[in-house]
Amino acid sequence: MKNDTPPELNQDQEIGRLIDEVMSSSLTDEQYRKKMQRRKEVQDKRIAEAVPEKGLIIVNTGNGKGKTTAALGMVLRSLGHGYKVAIIQFIKGSWEPSEKRVFSYWEDQIEFHAMGEGFTWETQDRDRDLDKASAAWEKSLEYIRNPDFHLVLLDEINIALKMAYLPVEDVLAGLAQKPANKHVILTGRGAPPALIECADLVTEMTLVKHPFRDQGVKAQPGIEY
Amino acid sequence: MKNDTPPELNQDQEIGRLIDEVMSSSLTDEQYRKKMQRRKEVQDKRIAEAVPEKGLIIVNTGNGKGKTTAALGMVLRSLGHGYKVAIIQFIKGSWEPSEKRVFSYWEDQIEFHAMGEGFTWETQDRDRDLDKASAAWEKSLEYIRNPDFHLVLLDEINIALKMAYLPVEDVLAGLAQKPANKHVILTGRGAPPALIECADLVTEMTLVKHPFRDQGVKAQPGIEY
Repeated sequence: MKNDTPPELNQDQEIGRLIDEVMSSSLTDEQYRKKMQRRKEVQDKRIAEAVPEKGLIIVNTGNGKGKTTAALGMVLRSLGHGYKVAIIQFIKGSWEPSEKRVFSYWEDQIEFHAMGEGFTWETQDRDRDLDKASAAWEKSLEYIRNPDFHLVLLDEINIALKMAYLPVEDVLAGLAQKPANKHVILTGRGAPPALIECADLVTEMTLVKHPFRDQGVKAQPGIEY
Repeated sequence: MKNDTPPELNQDQEIGRLIDEVMSSSLTDEQYRKKMQRRKEVQDKRIAEAVPEKGLIIVNTGNGKGKTTAALGMVLRSLGHGYKVAIIQFIKGSWEPSEKRVFSYWEDQIEFHAMGEGFTWETQDRDRDLDKASAAWEKSLEYIRNPDFHLVLLDEINIALKMAYLPVEDVLAGLAQKPANKHVILTGRGAPPALIECADLVTEMTLVKHPFRDQGVKAQPGIEY
């Protein structure tokens, strides 16, 4: 059962109510044990009834950190399972050296395309940005359709959508063409409502505190890049 | 300058206002170019004035996905930079096989300790959970103090704090002992206010949509574990 009940998933869905129950009352050890036992029964039943496999459309959005970083964590896990992974970057025009070094161990499992050219305040040319976004999307479609790739990461595509460099209708039509068991992750702030509507797993990363903004600290190697 | 201005950082801090400005007005190409140019000047100035290096206390909390996953992405980047990394898990009693397989490439750079025993509804024994949390914290302190380790990940420690298995005062006192350039990441929902107060970078992951809850889909390999 272990692989069907990763602790993070249990935690995210169940531990909140569990904690509130336990903390808001002074239980005897026996009451506590009984409550935990009931919780486990509910959890096990839920797991037993769950659908075994489904390719997910995953959206990491919001103005906080961790949208791309969390996607990289999923890439890492997928590589560990032996899956093939494709990463298309819509904004960055190159791969961070540290990430490139790490992924070089899996050259036979990972395909990477950095198809952006920094931000519009770098290029200062709208037409060029539009062309870049279209080319990145065409490349993305190849991997979304290709059954050999289990996970496709469209990094910062939400920015291209928000900036209207790419029609959301095209992206939704493309996602509809993915094989049933394939996962697609779309990152970047400002994910459009139509994309959120069609997604299976949507997480908003919210910035509570940031040293770059609050303390004027530069991006740190190993953390930001 | 590239490494001082990772696109994700620029984006998270600047692109929001940029997008709103551009989308909320119909600019001529020339006005657009000028606006982007001003944005770039402001951004470059800000970067030039930023503090070059600082070890960060990073908290990933909230009821959404990606708290541990984003931390794993930072671990991956740190390994790519050649840094030594220590991971202490406060809840899980074992390492996910896929993650273990991936990190096996860096046995000389990474130290991993899974010191939990699943959740309380698994153990159903409060005293045992308290002992586990204390032992995990003692191990954590070793790495927090050890200058050889550039990044220390305390996975799900916020759960132990929230469940009162570990006094937040002890954790704050321990974090105060870290070398200046060391990063410590604390994950898990329910991060206590005192910890958020002392942290440099705090992100709340908010669950917008989840297939496990909304569609009854089991955890997927490569995504959850």
